[in-house]
Amino acid sequence: MSGFTEDELIGTLRRLLSEEAPGVRVGPGDDAAVVDLGGQTAVLTADMLMEGVHFDRSTISARDLGYKAVVVNVSDVAAMGGSPRYGLVSLGLPPDVDAPWVVELYGGIRDAAAEYAMSVVGGDTSRADLVVVAVAVTGEVPGGAAVTRAGARPGDRIVVTGALGAAAGGLLLSRAPASEVGAALASPWGRDLLAAQFRPAARVGEGQTLAQRGATSMIDISDGLALDLSRLCRESGVGAVVRLADVPVAPGLTELAEVLPLDPLDLALSGGEDYELLATLPLEAVGRAADQLRERFGTPLGDVGEIRDGEGLTAVLPDGTERPLEAKGWDHFAG
Amino acid sequence: MSGFTEDELIGTLRRLLSEEAPGVRVGPGDDAAVVDLGGQTAVLTADMLMEGVHFDRSTISARDLGYKAVVVNVSDVAAMGGSPRYGLVSLGLPPDVDAPWVVELYGGIRDAAAEYAMSVVGGDTSRADLVVVAVAVTGEVPGGAAVTRAGARPGDRIVVTGALGAAAGGLLLSRAPASEVGAALASPWGRDLLAAQFRPAARVGEGQTLAQRGATSMIDISDGLALDLSRLCRESGVGAVVRLADVPVAPGLTELAEVLPLDPLDLALSGGEDYELLATLPLEAVGRAADQLRERFGTPLGDVGEIRDGEGLTAVLPDGTERPLEAKGWDHFAG
Repeated sequence: MSGFTEDELIGTLRRLLSEEAPGVRVGPGDDAAVVDLGGQTAVLTADMLMEGVHFDRSTISARDLGYKAVVVNVSDVAAMGGSPRYGLVSLGLPPDVDAPWVVELYGGIRDAAAEYAMSVVGGDTSRADLVVVAVAVTGEVPGGAAVTRAGARPGDRIVVTGALGAAAGGLLLSRAPASEVGAALASPWGRDLLAAQFRPAARVGEGQTLAQRGATSMIDISDGLALDLSRLCRESGVGAVVRLADVPVAPGLTELAEVLPLDPLDLALSGGEDYELLATLPLEAVGRAADQLRERFGTPLGDVGEIRDGEGLTAVLPDGTERPLEAKGWDHFAG
Repeated sequence: MSGFTEDELIGTLRRLLSEEAPGVRVGPGDDAAVVDLGGQTAVLTADMLMEGVHFDRSTISARDLGYKAVVVNVSDVAAMGGSPRYGLVSLGLPPDVDAPWVVELYGGIRDAAAEYAMSVVGGDTSRADLVVVAVAVTGEVPGGAAVTRAGARPGDRIVVTGALGAAAGGLLLSRAPASEVGAALASPWGRDLLAAQFRPAARVGEGQTLAQRGATSMIDISDGLALDLSRLCRESGVGAVVRLADVPVAPGLTELAEVLPLDPLDLALSGGEDYELLATLPLEAVGRAADQLRERFGTPLGDVGEIRDGEGLTAVLPDGTERPLEAKGWDHFAG
């Protein structure tokens, strides 16, 4: 679409749609909506993967595509501190897709549903000119206490699960000429990068643990640390400082940088689709949260910086100097 | 997609997905899913409109498109006897769509949400090669008693709200050369047919009333009376007899048949997108249900036939002879 970034469009739509409405606790603009439903609290989210924009049928298997379409939605539920329960899948299928491909696609959907203990309960199929996989997920929030993007306070620590940039590295690797990256494709680190791109994981248990530990805000990193942190800061009305030396760069990116022209830190800051969680926590809660994530899920929790008064992102370089951190990342309109 | 009708595909997917799962009262294959959520009952449905398949941007306004994308989902909730509460909207937008068009699209979405007392709480936007509008709706069922497609019993009457074929007539009219149908386009009946296609109504109150009156099964007519009745019969394990003289043919189709080559009854039987409700009721409940629909909503309820033992559809001609009624209609793969 012309004349809009994704964030500008979403801002416009929020103004159009998000009048105060009965039962709506969290409306458009967060990872997921939180609503009252018959006295209970439900988490609702929807995300669509479109051929030519989000995936290329020549490089992703039908099974991985189905799996990933579910995971990107589960990740939005995880970022609210919720757990997924039910999924709806709407498919657009072009004439050149055959039945075994569709069966594999649903196999991947089923695998992901099993992995995250949810049920696919319906949806819609129709002819299309290209493959579209639109998924909607309904979930629950334990105790009804969802974590939004809007609660970060000056002094809170900024924490990140896992490591960043792997999915973007995997995408670059999958698109590079096999003649140049054949050895990388076959290496353990290369396969890990590809898995991050094609078989991402959603951090459901981690999100609930961070919520229990008092996370003041949370977002999943779908468009890169810098851009998603800037969104969280905007919603919270705060600024942030990120210590670049503490950003957890995914293993394998250093090796990848030897065969492809890329900067590992840049991918960790601006690469999309990692589906790690970015949260803010009071300082005193960070240690215990990190312990629990490691013990329960084997997931590291990195402290990458601090929330400040004001607005905008600031990077602290290894030598201690500060510079503005550009909130660039994966924009589905620009990208 | 090759080698599959929509119904065959859905059957395959049901086998793949619909193992018994905790909390799932009605899984894939009905108008909407019915699930337990925190002790309450929720109705979940999703439907996608795709450019080039479900609409043509040159003949539908952005506002009507947004409106219709919501209504087709609300209609699925209505067909369970439920009421819609929350909507999620995922949009795919190609580069040649401009901002005013998107604002109009959301205006139509908002209009429909207001009409059906629901809130749009979130969704997703992305670049695409064509316009895709994927909507998911969460609703409630009063008393938790959803009406599925599977409860029709031999002896039940088959009833239909409103009149049929108007939306298909409107589509034909909108596609005909304006030089041939200019007078029809300007006529009150022509405008009614166009409105049925571009501004359909979902029968929410009617669905709840039919549920209260003891409807044994219900489906919304999105793909034509014959095809949707055959689906209802298959799910219920019964057959059906339809008296052709009693099928409520939409006003305006007779006039339309004077300017375009079409059979009004054929459109009423096989035209899609009317979003009227097709239900089965015990004989003794039909009169009161019809009275209530007329009094409360001004909506006629027509008795078009009877459920029988066995399988398949039978048409009774005006002279009393019977013939098989072909379950043809709008198939999104064939169409």
